[in-house]
Amino acid sequence: MTLITTPSRDDAAVDDFHRLFDAVAACGAAARGGVERQSASAADGEARRTFAAALEAAGATVRTDAVGNQYGVFALADRPDAPLVMLGSHLDSQPRGGRFDGALGVVAAAAVGAALMRAKRAGARFDADFCAVNWTNEEGARFRPSLLGSGFFTGKHDAAFALSRADDAGVTLGEALDAIGQRGADAPPPLPACYLELHIEQGLHLESAGADIGVVRRNWGAIKVDVRFQGEQAHTGPCPMPLRRDALLAAAYLIAEARAIAERWPGVVHTSVGRILVAPNSANVVPSEVALSLEIRSADDAVLAEAGALGARAIAEAAERANVTVTADRSERPIRQLPTDVCDLVAACAGALGLSHRDLDTVAGHDAISLLGLCPTGLIFVPSVGGVAHNEGEFTAPADLENGLRLCLEAAWRLCRAGGSPERATLAGGPA
Amino acid sequence: MTLITTPSRDDAAVDDFHRLFDAVAACGAAARGGVERQSASAADGEARRTFAAALEAAGATVRTDAVGNQYGVFALADRPDAPLVMLGSHLDSQPRGGRFDGALGVVAAAAVGAALMRAKRAGARFDADFCAVNWTNEEGARFRPSLLGSGFFTGKHDAAFALSRADDAGVTLGEALDAIGQRGADAPPPLPACYLELHIEQGLHLESAGADIGVVRRNWGAIKVDVRFQGEQAHTGPCPMPLRRDALLAAAYLIAEARAIAERWPGVVHTSVGRILVAPNSANVVPSEVALSLEIRSADDAVLAEAGALGARAIAEAAERANVTVTADRSERPIRQLPTDVCDLVAACAGALGLSHRDLDTVAGHDAISLLGLCPTGLIFVPSVGGVAHNEGEFTAPADLENGLRLCLEAAWRLCRAGGSPERATLAGGPA
Repeated sequence: MTLITTPSRDDAAVDDFHRLFDAVAACGAAARGGVERQSASAADGEARRTFAAALEAAGATVRTDAVGNQYGVFALADRPDAPLVMLGSHLDSQPRGGRFDGALGVVAAAAVGAALMRAKRAGARFDADFCAVNWTNEEGARFRPSLLGSGFFTGKHDAAFALSRADDAGVTLGEALDAIGQRGADAPPPLPACYLELHIEQGLHLESAGADIGVVRRNWGAIKVDVRFQGEQAHTGPCPMPLRRDALLAAAYLIAEARAIAERWPGVVHTSVGRILVAPNSANVVPSEVALSLEIRSADDAVLAEAGALGARAIAEAAERANVTVTADRSERPIRQLPTDVCDLVAACAGALGLSHRDLDTVAGHDAISLLGLCPTGLIFVPSVGGVAHNEGEFTAPADLENGLRLCLEAAWRLCRAGGSPERATLAGGPA
Repeated sequence: MTLITTPSRDDAAVDDFHRLFDAVAACGAAARGGVERQSASAADGEARRTFAAALEAAGATVRTDAVGNQYGVFALADRPDAPLVMLGSHLDSQPRGGRFDGALGVVAAAAVGAALMRAKRAGARFDADFCAVNWTNEEGARFRPSLLGSGFFTGKHDAAFALSRADDAGVTLGEALDAIGQRGADAPPPLPACYLELHIEQGLHLESAGADIGVVRRNWGAIKVDVRFQGEQAHTGPCPMPLRRDALLAAAYLIAEARAIAERWPGVVHTSVGRILVAPNSANVVPSEVALSLEIRSADDAVLAEAGALGARAIAEAAERANVTVTADRSERPIRQLPTDVCDLVAACAGALGLSHRDLDTVAGHDAISLLGLCPTGLIFVPSVGGVAHNEGEFTAPADLENGLRLCLEAAWRLCRAGGSPERATLAGGPA
């Protein structure tokens, strides 16, 4: 009988990981250590081809669906109806974003798939197949909404909706995917028996606590409001101040008030306006149109509701003070718990590997949140230095990356041998 | 002896005017009655060719200088050293601007030149030549600063500076002029003996007073500050509020405070922020960079100085509250009187034509302000309905346009017969 090594101690997986991580980070590499790799850009196309080539070299079958999600399926179980264990994240970045956000989870998934395939070839037996996934347009920077690819996978959005999202230059996601040869025609795989995502924390809790691994137990709720103020163009010189209908002034009142709302609940409510479009945006013209995105986030249902009501009042008052009209299109992401059985599996794997772990919230949205409630879903964080995120200065130490990789290897190994069941995988322990 | 008709009663001039005005308004015509004809755009090129063709058909020699200013010189005096009387304005528009702003003065100048040339051919004698001018990039919308072409003519800017100004897409004025074949090599004419500009009021005073003609006696001072806030990109979700360095929040504080400054001196101080650039401008990223243009205008020196000091304090406080750094680049246009002799000439001509007139300030900058102090300069307003400006809804009734045209004809006729001297022209009265 062949000796089956524990994949979580597979040094080849660590080498695979670093090699692919560096190759992906080179796609859209920016001057200060980050990446400029917005969804379906040329740099994203390059990263996607690098990912697909690594998957194929490792023995996976690569499928690309109608919205460009890439699935690398490793046939481990040798039966057509085997359940699927899925691991992944996204390769797209924010403008001048970090090289770890998203890419970590995708690259780790490819390395895990390759290690499991090596184990199979060495004689290991599996009761589930494995899929490494790259979701399209997680960031919502170039195309809105965010989580678009994972939202298509779960049926929240249909392909026509996703493909028709347009960037600020009017290019649709469909056109952009065509331009980089990444609009596919393959059927997506079925919902997995278990989905895991490895991500950098983008916050300070792990670093402050000196912990290796974050087990995400809850996601913050978010209220997102697309606000449009409509005023009237006028000359900034002669037009009397009381007659002005200044849409940018309304936006300024709202942005200042949104900050004040967060300050009412320190540490409990986060608010932001990250994006604003102004027309005609000429120095001598009173702005007539402003569109902006207001976000209010909290982990407390009652507080989020109250902050949301204050936000709605702030929008109306800003419009009234600036004598403009307003429309507000509100969407909400509820506060939810992640399933205990998956969290327990992650904690058990961390313990088995001697890694310290800590329960965390996620404030940011992640593709895992798209799948939450539809299948057993887990989200695993590793530390980010200084909590820096959406910034080229984002950094996670190699040892922390490797801890995350080994944890995923351990969890995926157990899951794929346990038919995808988190409960059985938690009990299973190490290699056969 | 040939009968010489009074040009101000030249019906052909009125016909010329309307025909050319409509042809120019068709260049870049927008959906709601205005024009989209920013400087050196394709539509501007079309308007420039329409203007040049009308000048040539009327017997002028057209020169285009290094920055694209167009001069139509009518040789009326038949001697090489004759003084020059100049009338003009600009053909470029704001984004979705009105069809009267600027175009009125340029089209009127062409019609006046044609009428004077007809008078010369009918036997009238002149002691000055006449020039109809279209100044490049008055608006400062596509390229900054505003008044760029007239500033080149007066020596405030050199050609290299003007041609290197870039729009938001990085296209320079030089490249844009080349693209429409409007970068010239002709020497500009010398400073005129007298410069006049006809413009719509862009305010409510004439309409409120029921007056036909505004004689501009004074221009408001303006402080313009290019402000740049520099913060730090961060994730709008997990990044703790106290750690954020949000450049857009700083801008919001400043925009709100700029309005409060104007409200301290109702009717005496106008403030505005019409233009703002935000980076990276992504919904999930705390903005790290904002550039904006702050304007503070007043006709009172002491008030302007005090409002300017408050503005400087508001900039610093906004940066401090939002925990960002700031740079501010300030320029100033002083409060100045327009020369009495030119104002008296305009008033005398209005009186001779039976037009009611009223002394006014100009709050907006105009090309005439570039020439102010360098040669006798006059600025003439006709009413704008509702004071609407920098807006497609801008409107001036045909009768008011014709009043302005006839006034310019009368003034230019007198000036060109009086060697360009406003004093002698004021005394001269009607036709020979």
